[in-house]
Amino acid sequence: MNNNLTRHLKTKSGLNSLTLDDILMSKKLASLGDAFVNFVYSIALSEKLGEPVGAKVKSQILADALRKAGLRRRLPSRTDRHTQGDAAEALIVYAWLQDILTLSEAVQVIEEKAEEPVEAFTTLLTQIEKRLAAA
Amino acid sequence: MNNNLTRHLKTKSGLNSLTLDDILMSKKLASLGDAFVNFVYSIALSEKLGEPVGAKVKSQILADALRKAGLRRRLPSRTDRHTQGDAAEALIVYAWLQDILTLSEAVQVIEEKAEEPVEAFTTLLTQIEKRLAAA
Repeated sequence: MNNNLTRHLKTKSGLNSLTLDDILMSKKLASLGDAFVNFVYSIALSEKLGEPVGAKVKSQILADALRKAGLRRRLPSRTDRHTQGDAAEALIVYAWLQDILTLSEAVQVIEEKAEEPVEAFTTLLTQIEKRLAAA
Repeated sequence: MNNNLTRHLKTKSGLNSLTLDDILMSKKLASLGDAFVNFVYSIALSEKLGEPVGAKVKSQILADALRKAGLRRRLPSRTDRHTQGDAAEALIVYAWLQDILTLSEAVQVIEEKAEEPVEAFTTLLTQIEKRLAAA
């Protein structure tokens, strides 16, 4: 299923021409990614618990996942935790915007390991990187 | 299009038996609703601007929309602004969870009036209430 929510964004924003390093450093993608990641995590957690709950994913969790997925080394060595978290958010929402990953797939991956969010986001980032490399 | 992200939540959480007043007062729905509303607004704004951006919807905006949609009077008169915003968030995500409104519809309604968020959320809440009343 393609993501039809963001047709205008896809054609206008020049996302197609971004390299992986551009994506990881994009503050604009990180800004939208924050909303996306919190929504995905909240849905996954609600599904797991069987009751509605909202949750924010901390920078530390996303920074750890970025490192475990082997993507931390793409950022300058002094990059702080928050910026590492931003990079993870940017890549995740990019994958969704570009139809590399559906919303439903993202929720499923996170839900499977909802109690271990670092593992959950590591799996998600690893899957995205594989698909990007194969594209 | 039905929302297939929340199958477990639908069957387990007893959402079906809630009255409109229950929904508006549900802190659990408000908690998930916060993530949902920020995601919808961020997508709508990104589409409008043609570039990725994340944004949080302030309680004041949702409280104003709740009043304009005629739903404020369902809450106790001393209810504060934040709790009024929570009520709006709870109702919006309830409508999505119950397939009264799709994610795509929500984004479209907000996108049409993205520069006037109070109007945008008033329209959304009014539409939800109408559909609930007709169901």
